[in-house]
Amino acid sequence: MNKIITISREFGSGGRSIGKEAAKRLEIPYYDKELIKQVAEKTGFAPQYIEEQGEYAPGKTGLSYVFAPPGGQDTMNGLNAADYLWIMQRQAVLELAEKGSCVIVGRCADYILRENPDCLHVFIHADTKFRAERIVRLYGESEKSPELRLKDKDARRSANYKHFTGREWGQCRNYHLSLDSGVIGADNCVDLIVRLAAGKMLLTEE
Amino acid sequence: MNKIITISREFGSGGRSIGKEAAKRLEIPYYDKELIKQVAEKTGFAPQYIEEQGEYAPGKTGLSYVFAPPGGQDTMNGLNAADYLWIMQRQAVLELAEKGSCVIVGRCADYILRENPDCLHVFIHADTKFRAERIVRLYGESEKSPELRLKDKDARRSANYKHFTGREWGQCRNYHLSLDSGVIGADNCVDLIVRLAAGKMLLTEE
Repeated sequence: MNKIITISREFGSGGRSIGKEAAKRLEIPYYDKELIKQVAEKTGFAPQYIEEQGEYAPGKTGLSYVFAPPGGQDTMNGLNAADYLWIMQRQAVLELAEKGSCVIVGRCADYILRENPDCLHVFIHADTKFRAERIVRLYGESEKSPELRLKDKDARRSANYKHFTGREWGQCRNYHLSLDSGVIGADNCVDLIVRLAAGKMLLTEE
Repeated sequence: MNKIITISREFGSGGRSIGKEAAKRLEIPYYDKELIKQVAEKTGFAPQYIEEQGEYAPGKTGLSYVFAPPGGQDTMNGLNAADYLWIMQRQAVLELAEKGSCVIVGRCADYILRENPDCLHVFIHADTKFRAERIVRLYGESEKSPELRLKDKDARRSANYKHFTGREWGQCRNYHLSLDSGVIGADNCVDLIVRLAAGKMLLTEE
């Protein structure tokens, strides 16, 4: 039986690192930028462009119409760039899940694989204070305050998710497991995911 | 250090049983109907009436204005019944949390104790199929389909929560831990809560 773990996360919550570590412990592939790269290869888009598109909802910026992608409209069957990318990303996620056990971070994989019974869908979040300190520590200061950076990034992810899935982002019911990494701790989050994914019962004896 | 566990839950998810079992394992008090009883004693309302009020948002039914509570408007300082009950329940939750470690199910305790650093806030949910089967098994059939009963009950809890807290119900960010009891299993949910509440690290060794 394949065990596919999808990880959705608030910016700065450490969800990406948690997913990476869980994949390492379970000895299964981890897809994130790798997945983006695959999509890039299929479409001819630059990986950086695809990564940015993942954060925007079409129609919010209008940029997807302004910048014609390589290959022209014909390649995209009349779709705008963001919609075309969605279709390609969706296909890539389905193919990766078909290949076998893996961890997939982001890319609305929780939604794309919502009917797949072999999935464990996880959401990682933390409060603003924890995430603000973490992004400054990891990525350094910038012109914008860390709180504003978080707010912008979360708003984009939320709008993108809503646009393509029709669902609200960060709802408990869309995930089997949702964890506050700031309170529970990254190591405990990894342990928990690994334990559940491996189908092991938690210990009932002290 | 006190450890207070608040459990919010979708109807039929087994959150109440999970909370009760966690309290038993941790050897700490469990408050649910007990809490309601305390409130009842303070206000003179019938416990049944208070329990029902917990499911309704004021203004949705208008019933809180139609039925005058015992004691009359004077006792309630001009507040309607639902608002008055909210204040009394809030006070009761704060007092119970002050007394020491405990498990509190429902009553918007996650919101009331949101600033309390000794809390573990948990949300228990499950898909409609799992919950429909469970409520029929536990409570039997009724005129309404189990799916409709779930929908009605969840809508009431959600409206009540929104009215008194201003927050959306079932958002990951409002809980440290959110679990799909249908997928993870009630026993595993209990284990996990007990382990985290007791401040124990999950095992990292296999």
